[in-house]
Amino acid sequence: MIKVSIMYPNNPGSTFDMKYYCEIHMPMVRQKLGAALKGVAVDQGIGGEEPGSPSPYLAVCHLLFDSVDAFQTSFAPHVKEFEADIPNYTNTQPTIQISEVKQA
Amino acid sequence: MIKVSIMYPNNPGSTFDMKYYCEIHMPMVRQKLGAALKGVAVDQGIGGEEPGSPSPYLAVCHLLFDSVDAFQTSFAPHVKEFEADIPNYTNTQPTIQISEVKQA
Repeated sequence: MIKVSIMYPNNPGSTFDMKYYCEIHMPMVRQKLGAALKGVAVDQGIGGEEPGSPSPYLAVCHLLFDSVDAFQTSFAPHVKEFEADIPNYTNTQPTIQISEVKQA
Repeated sequence: MIKVSIMYPNNPGSTFDMKYYCEIHMPMVRQKLGAALKGVAVDQGIGGEEPGSPSPYLAVCHLLFDSVDAFQTSFAPHVKEFEADIPNYTNTQPTIQISEVKQA
């Protein structure tokens, strides 16, 4: 299983509309990716290591797929549509990581 | 549900022993946190956004708890033991994020 983590950095002036993301963006992503998408998690940053410190990321979305190939094949046809929706919920540029899930 | 994400950065010269982490470190963490720990994921970075680019993090561990209070109460008594084991598997300093899970 592989995980694509999309991390929206928490910089000064950064904004993230979690309501839009959960109610509009993610349903579109789920619908477009269909059965290739094996799992989803959406995390809202609430803090860092020290009490009261800011979270490194405003939000992180994790998408699970059977393989990198399954991710690329299902994602590529929709990437322009996904990207075009980004300004509707954030002014940040996400950092992306692809991981192999070793324990879950 | 809250998620504590421990992210080990992928900088030049960084090392991470995933075998030690999965076979020695994580079993100790699970045992010490006991029933307060509601879920675990261990991700090994395999790439970034562009094909062939490095992952931002060598590894990421996600720990799930019912609440921030449940995390702090269960974690605090063992934090020195957890930290003392870090040099056994990595030479990096992890970045930590606490998140509220909005969708899973």
